[in-house]
Amino acid sequence: MPLSHILPQLEINTTLARRVLVNFIRNEVHKVGFQRAVLGVSGGVDSALAAYLTAEALGGENIKALRMPYKTSSPDSLEHAQMVIDALGLRSGTIEITAMVDPLFEQFPNMPPLRQGNIMARQRMVILYDQSAEFNGLVIGTGNKTEMLLGYSTLFGDSAAALHPLGDLYKCQVRQLARDMGVPEAIIQKAPSADLWPGQTDEGELGYTYDEADQVLFLLIDRRYTREEVVQEGFAPAFVDRVYHTVRRTQYKRIMPLIPKLSSRTIGYDFLYLRDWGETG
Amino acid sequence: MPLSHILPQLEINTTLARRVLVNFIRNEVHKVGFQRAVLGVSGGVDSALAAYLTAEALGGENIKALRMPYKTSSPDSLEHAQMVIDALGLRSGTIEITAMVDPLFEQFPNMPPLRQGNIMARQRMVILYDQSAEFNGLVIGTGNKTEMLLGYSTLFGDSAAALHPLGDLYKCQVRQLARDMGVPEAIIQKAPSADLWPGQTDEGELGYTYDEADQVLFLLIDRRYTREEVVQEGFAPAFVDRVYHTVRRTQYKRIMPLIPKLSSRTIGYDFLYLRDWGETG
Repeated sequence: MPLSHILPQLEINTTLARRVLVNFIRNEVHKVGFQRAVLGVSGGVDSALAAYLTAEALGGENIKALRMPYKTSSPDSLEHAQMVIDALGLRSGTIEITAMVDPLFEQFPNMPPLRQGNIMARQRMVILYDQSAEFNGLVIGTGNKTEMLLGYSTLFGDSAAALHPLGDLYKCQVRQLARDMGVPEAIIQKAPSADLWPGQTDEGELGYTYDEADQVLFLLIDRRYTREEVVQEGFAPAFVDRVYHTVRRTQYKRIMPLIPKLSSRTIGYDFLYLRDWGETG
Repeated sequence: MPLSHILPQLEINTTLARRVLVNFIRNEVHKVGFQRAVLGVSGGVDSALAAYLTAEALGGENIKALRMPYKTSSPDSLEHAQMVIDALGLRSGTIEITAMVDPLFEQFPNMPPLRQGNIMARQRMVILYDQSAEFNGLVIGTGNKTEMLLGYSTLFGDSAAALHPLGDLYKCQVRQLARDMGVPEAIIQKAPSADLWPGQTDEGELGYTYDEADQVLFLLIDRRYTREEVVQEGFAPAFVDRVYHTVRRTQYKRIMPLIPKLSSRTIGYDFLYLRDWGETG
Protein backbone atom coordinates (compact mmCIF):
# COMPACT_ATOMS: atom_id res chain seq x y z
CA MET A 1 0.00 0.00 0.00
CA PRO A 2 1.58 3.28 -1.08
CA LEU A 3 1.20 6.22 1.25
CA SER A 4 -0.69 8.18 -1.39
CA HIS A 5 -3.62 8.84 0.92
CA ILE A 6 -1.43 10.94 3.18
CA LEU A 7 1.16 13.69 2.80
CA PRO A 8 3.84 12.43 0.39
CA GLN A 9 6.58 13.89 2.62
CA LEU A 10 5.76 11.26 5.25
CA GLU A 11 7.09 8.55 2.94
CA ILE A 12 10.55 7.47 4.06
CA ASN A 13 13.54 5.90 2.37
CA THR A 14 13.13 2.48 3.92
CA THR A 15 16.57 1.24 2.85
CA LEU A 16 18.24 4.09 4.65
CA ALA A 17 15.98 3.93 7.72
CA ARG A 18 16.55 0.20 8.05
CA ARG A 19 20.31 0.62 7.90
CA VAL A 20 20.33 3.49 10.40
CA LEU A 21 18.08 1.68 12.88
CA VAL A 22 19.86 -1.68 12.67
CA ASN A 23 23.22 0.01 13.19
CA PHE A 24 21.82 2.07 16.04
CA ILE A 25 20.60 -1.02 17.87
CA ARG A 26 23.82 -2.94 17.30
CA ASN A 27 26.06 -0.06 18.36
CA GLU A 28 24.11 0.94 21.43
CA VAL A 29 23.80 -2.64 22.67
CA HIS A 30 27.42 -3.56 22.00
CA LYS A 31 29.09 -0.43 23.31
CA VAL A 32 27.63 -0.90 26.79
CA GLY A 33 28.97 -4.44 26.82
CA PHE A 34 25.82 -6.35 25.93
CA GLN A 35 25.21 -8.87 23.14
CA ARG A 36 21.56 -9.52 23.79
CA ALA A 37 18.16 -7.88 23.96
CA VAL A 38 14.80 -8.45 25.56
CA LEU A 39 11.54 -7.19 24.19
CA GLY A 40 7.82 -7.64 24.59
CA VAL A 41 5.94 -8.94 21.54
CA SER A 42 2.30 -8.00 21.68
CA GLY A 43 1.31 -9.20 18.25
CA GLY A 44 1.09 -5.62 17.00
CA VAL A 45 3.06 -3.94 14.24
CA ASP A 46 5.29 -1.82 16.50
CA SER A 47 6.73 -4.70 18.49
CA ALA A 48 6.94 -6.80 15.33
CA LEU A 49 9.04 -4.16 13.56
CA ALA A 50 11.18 -3.64 16.67
CA ALA A 51 11.80 -7.40 16.71
CA TYR A 52 12.70 -7.53 13.01
CA LEU A 53 15.18 -4.67 13.39
CA THR A 54 16.71 -6.10 16.56
CA ALA A 55 17.03 -9.56 15.03
CA GLU A 56 18.86 -8.06 12.04
CA ALA A 57 21.15 -6.19 14.43
CA LEU A 58 21.94 -8.94 16.95
CA GLY A 59 20.71 -12.27 15.53
CA GLY A 60 17.48 -13.96 16.54
CA GLU A 61 19.19 -16.25 19.06
CA ASN A 62 20.32 -13.22 21.05
CA ILE A 63 16.79 -11.94 21.56
CA LYS A 64 14.30 -13.00 24.15
CA ALA A 65 10.77 -12.16 23.06
CA LEU A 66 8.25 -12.10 25.89
CA ARG A 67 4.55 -12.58 25.54
CA MET A 68 2.87 -11.10 28.60
CA PRO A 69 -0.88 -11.69 28.32
CA TYR A 70 -3.55 -10.75 30.79
CA LYS A 71 -6.39 -13.21 31.21
CA THR A 72 -8.60 -11.16 28.87
CA SER A 73 -5.95 -10.72 26.17
CA SER A 74 -6.99 -11.68 22.68
CA PRO A 75 -5.83 -15.13 21.45
CA ASP A 76 -5.06 -13.42 18.11
CA SER A 77 -2.39 -11.36 19.88
CA LEU A 78 -0.56 -14.46 21.05
CA GLU A 79 -0.81 -16.03 17.63
CA HIS A 80 0.56 -12.95 15.87
CA ALA A 81 3.37 -12.73 18.42
CA GLN A 82 4.19 -16.36 17.66
CA MET A 83 4.40 -15.58 13.93
CA VAL A 84 7.11 -13.00 14.67
CA ILE A 85 8.99 -15.36 17.01
CA ASP A 86 8.93 -18.16 14.44
CA ALA A 87 9.84 -15.98 11.48
CA LEU A 88 12.93 -14.58 13.24
CA GLY A 89 13.98 -17.60 15.29
CA LEU A 90 13.76 -15.68 18.55
CA ARG A 91 14.01 -17.22 21.97
CA SER A 92 10.71 -16.72 23.67
CA GLY A 93 8.79 -17.00 26.86
CA THR A 94 5.29 -16.35 28.12
CA ILE A 95 4.78 -14.75 31.51
CA GLU A 96 1.21 -13.89 32.44
CA ILE A 97 0.65 -10.58 34.16
CA THR A 98 -2.69 -11.67 35.60
CA ALA A 99 -1.50 -12.66 39.08
CA MET A 100 0.55 -9.45 39.38
CA VAL A 101 -2.27 -7.21 38.20
CA ASP A 102 -5.31 -8.67 39.95
CA PRO A 103 -4.34 -7.84 43.56
CA LEU A 104 -4.71 -4.09 42.83
CA PHE A 105 -7.79 -4.60 40.65
CA GLU A 106 -9.42 -6.48 43.53
CA GLN A 107 -8.45 -3.85 46.07
CA PHE A 108 -10.01 -1.10 43.92
CA PRO A 109 -13.01 -2.82 42.29
CA ASN A 110 -14.32 0.37 40.66
CA MET A 111 -11.03 1.27 39.05
CA PRO A 112 -11.57 2.99 35.68
CA PRO A 113 -10.08 1.37 32.56
CA LEU A 114 -7.31 3.97 32.22
CA ARG A 115 -5.89 3.04 35.64
CA GLN A 116 -6.23 -0.64 34.80
CA GLY A 117 -4.39 -0.19 31.53
CA ASN A 118 -1.57 1.69 33.20
CA ILE A 119 -1.13 -1.04 35.81
CA MET A 120 -0.99 -3.67 33.09
CA ALA A 121 1.58 -1.74 31.06
CA ARG A 122 3.73 -1.22 34.17
CA GLN A 123 3.58 -4.89 35.13
CA ARG A 124 4.90 -5.70 31.65
CA MET A 125 7.78 -3.30 32.33
CA VAL A 126 8.47 -5.08 35.64
CA ILE A 127 8.70 -8.41 33.81
CA LEU A 128 10.82 -7.07 30.94
CA TYR A 129 13.35 -5.46 33.29
CA ASP A 130 13.51 -8.59 35.39
CA GLN A 131 14.04 -10.66 32.25
CA SER A 132 16.69 -8.16 31.20
CA ALA A 133 18.64 -9.09 34.33
CA GLU A 134 18.00 -12.80 33.85
CA PHE A 135 18.87 -12.96 30.13
CA ASN A 136 21.54 -10.27 30.30
CA GLY A 137 19.93 -8.27 27.52
CA LEU A 138 18.99 -4.62 27.04
CA VAL A 139 15.30 -3.78 26.99
CA ILE A 140 14.25 -2.62 23.52
CA GLY A 141 11.22 -0.34 23.52
CA THR A 142 8.54 -0.40 20.88
CA GLY A 143 7.18 3.15 21.10
CA ASN A 144 6.80 5.19 17.93
CA LYS A 145 6.88 8.94 17.37
CA THR A 146 3.11 9.30 17.02
CA GLU A 147 2.31 7.73 20.36
CA MET A 148 5.19 9.47 22.10
CA LEU A 149 4.10 12.90 20.85
CA LEU A 150 0.48 12.20 21.77
CA GLY A 151 1.55 10.84 25.16
CA TYR A 152 -0.46 7.75 24.23
CA SER A 153 1.70 5.47 26.33
CA THR A 154 2.15 4.63 30.00
CA LEU A 155 4.86 6.52 31.82
CA PHE A 156 7.26 3.98 33.37
CA GLY A 157 5.27 1.31 31.53
CA ASP A 158 5.66 0.77 27.79
CA SER A 159 7.66 4.01 27.58
CA ALA A 160 10.36 2.46 29.82
CA ALA A 161 13.25 0.95 27.84
CA ALA A 162 16.95 1.38 27.16
CA LEU A 163 16.39 2.23 23.48
CA HIS A 164 13.38 3.22 21.40
CA PRO A 165 14.39 2.29 17.84
CA LEU A 166 11.01 3.39 16.44
CA GLY A 167 10.91 6.65 18.40
CA ASP A 168 11.47 8.84 15.34
CA LEU A 169 9.03 7.02 13.04
CA TYR A 170 5.39 8.06 12.73
CA LYS A 171 2.88 5.22 12.77
CA CYS A 172 2.44 5.29 8.97
CA GLN A 173 6.23 5.07 8.63
CA VAL A 174 6.31 2.11 11.01
CA ARG A 175 3.86 0.36 8.68
CA GLN A 176 5.88 1.32 5.60
CA LEU A 177 9.13 -0.04 7.04
CA ALA A 178 7.39 -3.13 8.48
CA ARG A 179 6.06 -3.99 5.03
CA ASP A 180 9.49 -3.48 3.52
CA MET A 181 11.08 -5.83 6.07
CA GLY A 182 8.54 -8.58 5.56
CA VAL A 183 6.41 -8.31 8.69
CA PRO A 184 3.31 -10.44 7.98
CA GLU A 185 0.44 -8.50 6.40
CA ALA A 186 -2.01 -9.81 9.00
CA ILE A 187 -0.02 -7.90 11.63
CA ILE A 188 0.37 -4.75 9.55
CA GLN A 189 -3.26 -4.51 8.55
CA LYS A 190 -5.08 -5.21 11.79
CA ALA A 191 -6.43 -2.32 13.83
CA PRO A 192 -3.83 -1.10 16.35
CA SER A 193 -4.89 -1.98 19.88
CA ALA A 194 -3.42 -1.92 23.36
CA ASP A 195 -5.52 -5.09 23.90
CA LEU A 196 -6.56 -3.95 27.36
CA TRP A 197 -10.14 -5.07 26.90
CA PRO A 198 -11.95 -6.96 24.13
CA GLY A 199 -12.66 -4.80 21.11
CA GLN A 200 -10.41 -1.91 22.21
CA THR A 201 -8.68 -0.07 19.38
CA ASP A 202 -6.23 2.82 19.64
CA GLU A 203 -8.10 4.85 17.06
CA GLY A 204 -11.44 4.27 18.75
CA GLU A 205 -9.98 5.50 22.00
CA LEU A 206 -8.14 8.47 20.51
CA GLY A 207 -11.14 9.54 18.48
CA TYR A 208 -9.16 9.96 15.26
CA THR A 209 -7.01 7.82 12.98
CA TYR A 210 -3.25 7.50 13.13
CA ASP A 211 -3.06 8.73 9.53
CA GLU A 212 -4.84 11.94 10.54
CA ALA A 213 -2.63 12.39 13.58
CA ASP A 214 0.58 11.62 11.67
CA GLN A 215 -0.06 14.32 9.12
CA VAL A 216 -0.93 17.04 11.62
CA LEU A 217 1.98 16.08 13.89
CA PHE A 218 4.39 16.07 10.98
CA LEU A 219 3.35 19.59 9.94
CA LEU A 220 3.32 20.97 13.50
CA ILE A 221 6.49 19.31 14.78
CA ASP A 222 8.79 18.43 11.88
CA ARG A 223 7.79 21.33 9.63
CA ARG A 224 7.11 23.78 12.47
CA TYR A 225 3.87 24.97 10.88
CA THR A 226 1.63 27.18 12.97
CA ARG A 227 -1.82 25.82 13.71
CA GLU A 228 -3.25 28.27 11.17
CA GLU A 229 -0.90 26.97 8.49
CA VAL A 230 -1.92 23.37 9.22
CA VAL A 231 -5.57 24.36 8.90
CA GLN A 232 -4.77 25.93 5.53
CA GLU A 233 -3.55 22.50 4.40
CA GLY A 234 -7.10 21.24 4.81
CA PHE A 235 -7.29 19.91 8.38
CA ALA A 236 -10.18 20.80 10.69
CA PRO A 237 -9.32 23.59 13.14
CA ALA A 238 -10.73 21.75 16.16
CA PHE A 239 -8.70 18.65 15.33
CA VAL A 240 -5.49 20.63 14.85
CA ASP A 241 -6.04 22.37 18.19
CA ARG A 242 -6.71 19.09 19.88
CA VAL A 243 -3.51 17.48 18.60
CA TYR A 244 -1.49 20.61 19.43
CA HIS A 245 -2.71 20.72 23.03
CA THR A 246 -2.29 16.97 23.47
CA VAL A 247 1.39 17.23 22.54
CA ARG A 248 1.96 20.10 24.95
CA ARG A 249 -0.01 18.62 27.82
CA THR A 250 1.94 15.36 27.69
CA GLN A 251 5.43 16.88 27.67
CA TYR A 252 5.98 15.59 31.23
CA LYS A 253 6.13 12.07 29.82
CA ARG A 254 9.09 12.95 27.63
CA ILE A 255 11.46 14.32 30.27
CA MET A 256 13.26 13.14 33.39
CA PRO A 257 11.83 13.90 36.84
CA LEU A 258 12.64 17.48 37.86
CA ILE A 259 15.39 18.22 40.36
CA PRO A 260 15.58 21.68 41.96
CA LYS A 261 18.99 23.32 41.66
CA LEU A 262 20.84 23.90 44.94
CA SER A 263 24.48 23.07 44.25
CA SER A 264 27.08 24.00 41.68
CA ARG A 265 26.37 20.87 39.61
CA THR A 266 22.88 19.42 39.44
CA ILE A 267 21.79 16.20 37.74
CA GLY A 268 19.78 17.06 34.63
CA TYR A 269 20.94 20.70 34.41
CA ASP A 270 24.71 21.04 34.39
CA PHE A 271 25.65 17.44 35.13
CA LEU A 272 24.91 15.99 31.70
CA TYR A 273 26.55 13.12 29.86
CA LEU A 274 25.65 10.70 27.10
CA ARG A 275 24.33 7.24 27.85
CA ASP A 276 27.65 5.58 27.02
CA TRP A 277 29.79 8.00 29.05
CA GLY A 278 30.97 5.10 31.20
CA GLU A 279 32.43 3.28 28.22
CA THR A 280 34.49 6.01 26.65
CA GLY A 281 37.35 6.39 29.09
CA MET B 1 25.41 16.71 65.23
CA PRO B 2 27.59 19.17 63.32
CA LEU B 3 29.14 17.99 60.08
CA SER B 4 32.62 18.51 61.47
CA HIS B 5 33.66 14.95 60.65
CA ILE B 6 33.31 15.64 56.93
CA LEU B 7 34.32 18.37 54.50
CA PRO B 8 32.99 21.69 55.85
CA GLN B 9 31.92 22.73 52.33
CA LEU B 10 29.22 20.05 52.45
CA GLU B 11 27.38 21.99 55.14
CA ILE B 12 24.42 23.82 53.64
CA ASN B 13 22.44 26.90 54.56
CA THR B 14 19.34 25.04 55.72
CA THR B 15 17.14 28.14 55.84
CA LEU B 16 17.83 28.85 52.19
CA ALA B 17 17.58 25.21 51.10
CA ARG B 18 14.27 24.79 52.89
CA ARG B 19 12.83 27.90 51.24
CA VAL B 20 14.05 26.88 47.78
CA LEU B 21 12.75 23.34 48.06
CA VAL B 22 9.35 24.25 49.51
CA ASN B 23 8.83 26.85 46.79
CA PHE B 24 9.98 24.38 44.14
CA ILE B 25 7.42 21.79 45.23
CA ARG B 26 4.59 24.31 45.51
CA ASN B 27 5.33 25.91 42.14
CA GLU B 28 5.82 22.70 40.20
CA VAL B 29 2.69 21.10 41.63
CA HIS B 30 0.49 24.16 41.17
CA LYS B 31 1.59 25.18 37.73
CA VAL B 32 0.55 21.87 36.20
CA GLY B 33 -2.87 22.29 37.79
CA PHE B 34 -2.48 20.04 40.81
CA GLN B 35 -3.03 20.81 44.51
CA ARG B 36 -2.02 17.48 45.92
CA ALA B 37 0.84 15.02 46.17
CA VAL B 38 1.38 11.33 46.76
CA LEU B 39 4.51 9.85 48.27
CA GLY B 40 5.80 6.65 49.74
CA VAL B 41 6.91 6.81 53.36
CA SER B 42 9.34 4.06 54.16
CA GLY B 43 10.28 5.15 57.65
CA GLY B 44 13.67 6.36 56.43
CA VAL B 45 15.10 9.86 56.53
CA ASP B 46 14.78 10.58 52.79
CA SER B 47 11.05 10.00 52.57
CA ALA B 48 10.59 11.71 55.96
CA LEU B 49 12.32 14.86 54.73
CA ALA B 50 10.44 14.75 51.42
CA ALA B 51 7.20 14.53 53.40
CA TYR B 52 8.15 17.45 55.69
CA LEU B 53 9.01 19.66 52.71
CA THR B 54 5.89 18.67 50.77
CA ALA B 55 3.65 19.25 53.79
CA GLU B 56 5.13 22.73 54.21
CA ALA B 57 4.51 23.39 50.51
CA LEU B 58 0.98 22.00 50.13
CA GLY B 59 -0.43 21.35 53.61
CA GLY B 60 -0.58 17.91 55.22
CA GLU B 61 -4.20 17.32 54.21
CA ASN B 62 -3.19 17.52 50.55
CA ILE B 63 -0.70 14.69 50.83
CA LYS B 64 -1.36 10.99 50.69
CA ALA B 65 1.45 9.06 52.34
CA LEU B 66 1.60 5.41 51.35
CA ARG B 67 3.16 2.64 53.37
CA MET B 68 3.90 -0.25 51.03
CA PRO B 69 5.37 -3.07 53.08
CA TYR B 70 6.42 -6.50 51.88
CA LYS B 71 5.71 -9.39 54.22
CA THR B 72 9.30 -9.34 55.48
CA SER B 73 9.44 -5.56 56.01
CA SER B 74 10.61 -4.42 59.40
CA PRO B 75 7.85 -3.36 61.85
CA ASP B 76 10.14 -0.46 62.82
CA SER B 77 9.74 0.91 59.30
CA LEU B 78 5.97 1.08 59.63
CA GLU B 79 6.24 2.68 63.04
CA HIS B 80 8.67 5.34 61.84
CA ALA B 81 6.46 6.01 58.83
CA GLN B 82 3.55 6.49 61.22
CA MET B 83 5.54 9.04 63.23
CA VAL B 84 5.93 11.15 60.08
CA ILE B 85 2.26 10.78 59.15
CA ASP B 86 1.13 11.81 62.64
CA ALA B 87 3.58 14.69 62.99
CA LEU B 88 2.46 16.25 59.71
CA GLY B 89 -1.23 15.30 59.70
CA LEU B 90 -0.93 13.51 56.37
CA ARG B 91 -3.61 11.36 54.84
CA SER B 92 -2.29 7.86 54.68
CA GLY B 93 -2.86 4.37 53.44
CA THR B 94 -1.17 1.02 53.57
CA ILE B 95 -1.03 -1.15 50.47
CA GLU B 96 1.00 -4.33 50.74
CA ILE B 97 3.15 -5.23 47.78
CA THR B 98 3.35 -8.90 48.78
CA ALA B 99 0.61 -10.24 46.50
CA MET B 100 2.00 -8.27 43.53
CA VAL B 101 5.58 -9.36 44.13
CA ASP B 102 5.21 -13.03 45.01
CA PRO B 103 3.96 -14.32 41.63
CA LEU B 104 7.33 -13.52 40.03
CA PHE B 105 9.30 -14.67 43.06
CA GLU B 106 7.48 -18.01 42.87
CA GLN B 107 8.05 -18.33 39.13
CA PHE B 108 11.80 -17.78 39.58
CA PRO B 109 12.57 -19.40 42.94
CA ASN B 110 16.34 -18.90 42.67
CA MET B 111 16.07 -15.19 41.93
CA PRO B 112 19.03 -13.28 43.42
CA PRO B 113 18.30 -10.52 45.96
CA LEU B 114 19.11 -7.72 43.49
CA ARG B 115 16.35 -8.82 41.14
CA GLN B 116 13.99 -9.23 44.08
CA GLY B 117 14.75 -5.75 45.33
CA ASN B 118 14.16 -4.23 41.90
CA ILE B 119 10.79 -5.94 41.58
CA MET B 120 9.77 -4.66 45.01
CA ALA B 121 10.84 -1.10 44.19
CA ARG B 122 8.96 -1.21 40.89
CA GLN B 123 5.79 -2.54 42.50
CA ARG B 124 5.89 0.45 44.84
CA MET B 125 6.09 2.69 41.78
CA VAL B 126 3.05 0.92 40.30
CA ILE B 127 1.08 1.63 43.48
CA LEU B 128 2.24 5.24 43.80
CA TYR B 129 1.33 6.05 40.20
CA ASP B 130 -2.03 4.37 40.58
CA GLN B 131 -2.64 6.31 43.79
CA SER B 132 -1.56 9.45 41.94
CA ALA B 133 -4.48 8.91 39.56
CA GLU B 134 -6.87 8.05 42.39
CA PHE B 135 -5.91 10.93 44.70
CA ASN B 136 -5.20 13.39 41.88
CA GLY B 137 -1.74 14.16 43.25
CA LEU B 138 1.74 14.36 41.75
CA VAL B 139 4.20 11.67 42.76
CA ILE B 140 6.99 13.15 44.87
CA GLY B 141 10.24 11.20 44.69
CA THR B 142 12.55 10.70 47.63
CA GLY B 143 15.88 10.13 45.87
CA ASN B 144 18.92 12.11 46.99
CA LYS B 145 22.03 13.18 45.07
CA THR B 146 24.28 10.52 46.60
CA GLU B 147 22.13 7.60 45.56
CA MET B 148 21.37 9.09 42.16
CA LEU B 149 25.07 9.60 41.38
CA LEU B 150 25.91 6.11 42.61
CA GLY B 151 22.98 4.65 40.67
CA TYR B 152 21.92 3.12 43.97
CA SER B 153 18.27 3.11 43.05
CA THR B 154 15.93 1.11 40.86
CA LEU B 155 15.36 2.44 37.36
CA PHE B 156 11.58 2.93 36.87
CA GLY B 157 11.23 2.03 40.56
CA ASP B 158 12.12 4.49 43.32
CA SER B 159 13.74 6.74 40.70
CA ALA B 160 10.34 7.21 39.02
CA ALA B 161 8.54 10.39 40.12
CA ALA B 162 7.35 13.75 38.86
CA LEU B 163 9.74 15.69 41.12
CA HIS B 164 12.80 14.77 43.15
CA PRO B 165 13.02 17.57 45.76
CA LEU B 166 16.08 15.97 47.40
CA GLY B 167 17.89 15.27 44.14
CA ASP B 168 20.52 17.95 44.68
CA LEU B 169 21.22 17.13 48.35
CA TYR B 170 23.91 14.67 49.39
CA LYS B 171 22.92 12.18 52.08
CA CYS B 172 24.71 14.15 54.83
CA GLN B 173 22.84 17.27 53.68
CA VAL B 174 19.54 15.39 53.80
CA ARG B 175 20.30 14.58 57.43
CA GLN B 176 21.29 18.18 58.17
CA LEU B 177 18.08 19.59 56.69
CA ALA B 178 15.95 16.83 58.27
CA ARG B 179 17.31 17.75 61.69
CA ASP B 180 16.64 21.42 61.05
CA MET B 181 13.03 20.70 60.07
CA GLY B 182 12.31 18.55 63.10
CA VAL B 183 12.31 15.05 61.65
CA PRO B 184 12.45 12.68 64.67
CA GLU B 185 15.98 11.74 65.73
CA ALA B 186 15.10 8.04 65.71
CA ILE B 187 14.57 8.32 61.96
CA ILE B 188 17.67 10.44 61.31
CA GLN B 189 20.01 8.26 63.31
CA LYS B 190 19.05 4.77 62.24
CA ALA B 191 21.13 2.99 59.63
CA PRO B 192 19.83 3.72 56.11
CA SER B 193 18.24 0.61 54.63
CA ALA B 194 16.16 -0.35 51.60
CA ASP B 195 14.52 -2.86 53.98
CA LEU B 196 14.52 -5.56 51.32
CA TRP B 197 15.60 -8.25 53.74
CA PRO B 198 16.08 -8.32 57.53
CA GLY B 199 19.33 -6.68 58.59
CA GLN B 200 20.05 -5.09 55.21
CA THR B 201 21.76 -1.71 55.33
CA ASP B 202 22.72 0.53 52.43
CA GLU B 203 26.24 1.01 53.73
CA GLY B 204 26.74 -2.72 54.24
CA GLU B 205 25.69 -3.33 50.67
CA LEU B 206 27.69 -0.49 49.18
CA GLY B 207 30.81 -1.41 51.14
CA TYR B 208 31.45 2.16 52.30
CA THR B 209 29.67 4.83 54.30
CA TYR B 210 27.53 7.61 52.90
CA ASP B 211 29.83 10.14 54.56
CA GLU B 212 32.78 8.72 52.63
CA ALA B 213 30.84 8.67 49.38
CA ASP B 214 29.45 12.18 49.88
CA GLN B 215 32.88 13.71 50.26
CA VAL B 216 34.42 12.00 47.24
CA LEU B 217 31.36 12.71 45.10
CA PHE B 218 31.34 16.35 46.15
CA LEU B 219 34.99 16.79 45.16
CA LEU B 220 34.66 14.87 41.88
CA ILE B 221 31.32 16.25 40.73
CA ASP B 222 30.67 19.63 42.34
CA ARG B 223 34.30 20.74 42.53
CA ARG B 224 35.40 18.91 39.37
CA TYR B 225 38.54 17.57 41.05
CA THR B 226 40.52 14.95 39.17
CA ARG B 227 40.85 11.57 40.85
CA GLU B 228 44.46 12.45 41.72
CA GLU B 229 43.36 15.66 43.41
CA VAL B 230 40.77 13.80 45.46
CA VAL B 231 43.45 11.33 46.57
CA GLN B 232 45.62 14.27 47.63
CA GLU B 233 42.81 15.29 49.98
CA GLY B 234 43.38 12.06 51.88
CA PHE B 235 41.03 9.52 50.28
CA ALA B 236 42.20 6.03 49.31
CA PRO B 237 42.97 5.71 45.58
CA ALA B 238 41.02 2.46 45.18
CA PHE B 239 37.96 4.00 46.82
CA VAL B 240 38.13 7.13 44.67
CA ASP B 241 38.41 4.99 41.53
CA ARG B 242 35.51 2.88 42.62
CA VAL B 243 33.22 5.86 43.19
CA TYR B 244 34.35 7.47 39.93
CA HIS B 245 33.58 4.37 37.87
CA THR B 246 30.30 3.78 39.66
CA VAL B 247 29.08 7.24 38.68
CA ARG B 248 30.06 6.73 35.03
CA ARG B 249 28.71 3.19 34.75
CA THR B 250 25.29 4.23 36.04
CA GLN B 251 24.79 7.20 33.72
CA TYR B 252 22.10 5.26 31.84
CA LYS B 253 19.86 5.61 34.89
CA ARG B 254 19.97 9.40 34.68
CA ILE B 255 18.81 9.87 31.09
CA MET B 256 15.79 9.18 28.94
CA PRO B 257 15.68 6.11 26.67
CA LEU B 258 17.67 6.74 23.48
CA ILE B 259 15.91 7.50 20.21
CA PRO B 260 17.87 7.30 16.94
CA LYS B 261 17.61 10.41 14.81
CA LEU B 262 15.85 9.97 11.45
CA SER B 263 13.71 13.06 10.98
CA SER B 264 14.20 16.80 11.14
CA ARG B 265 12.93 16.93 14.75
CA THR B 266 13.57 14.08 17.13
CA ILE B 267 12.28 13.70 20.69
CA GLY B 268 15.17 14.18 23.12
CA TYR B 269 17.51 15.83 20.58
CA ASP B 270 15.96 18.83 18.90
CA PHE B 271 12.43 18.49 20.19
CA LEU B 272 13.01 19.74 23.71
CA TYR B 273 10.72 21.63 26.06
CA LEU B 274 10.36 22.17 29.77
CA ARG B 275 8.02 20.09 31.89
CA ASP B 276 5.46 22.89 32.12
CA TRP B 277 5.49 23.73 28.40
CA GLY B 278 1.81 22.83 28.18
CA GLU B 279 0.87 25.43 30.76
CA THR B 280 2.66 28.45 29.36
CA GLY B 281 0.62 29.28 26.28
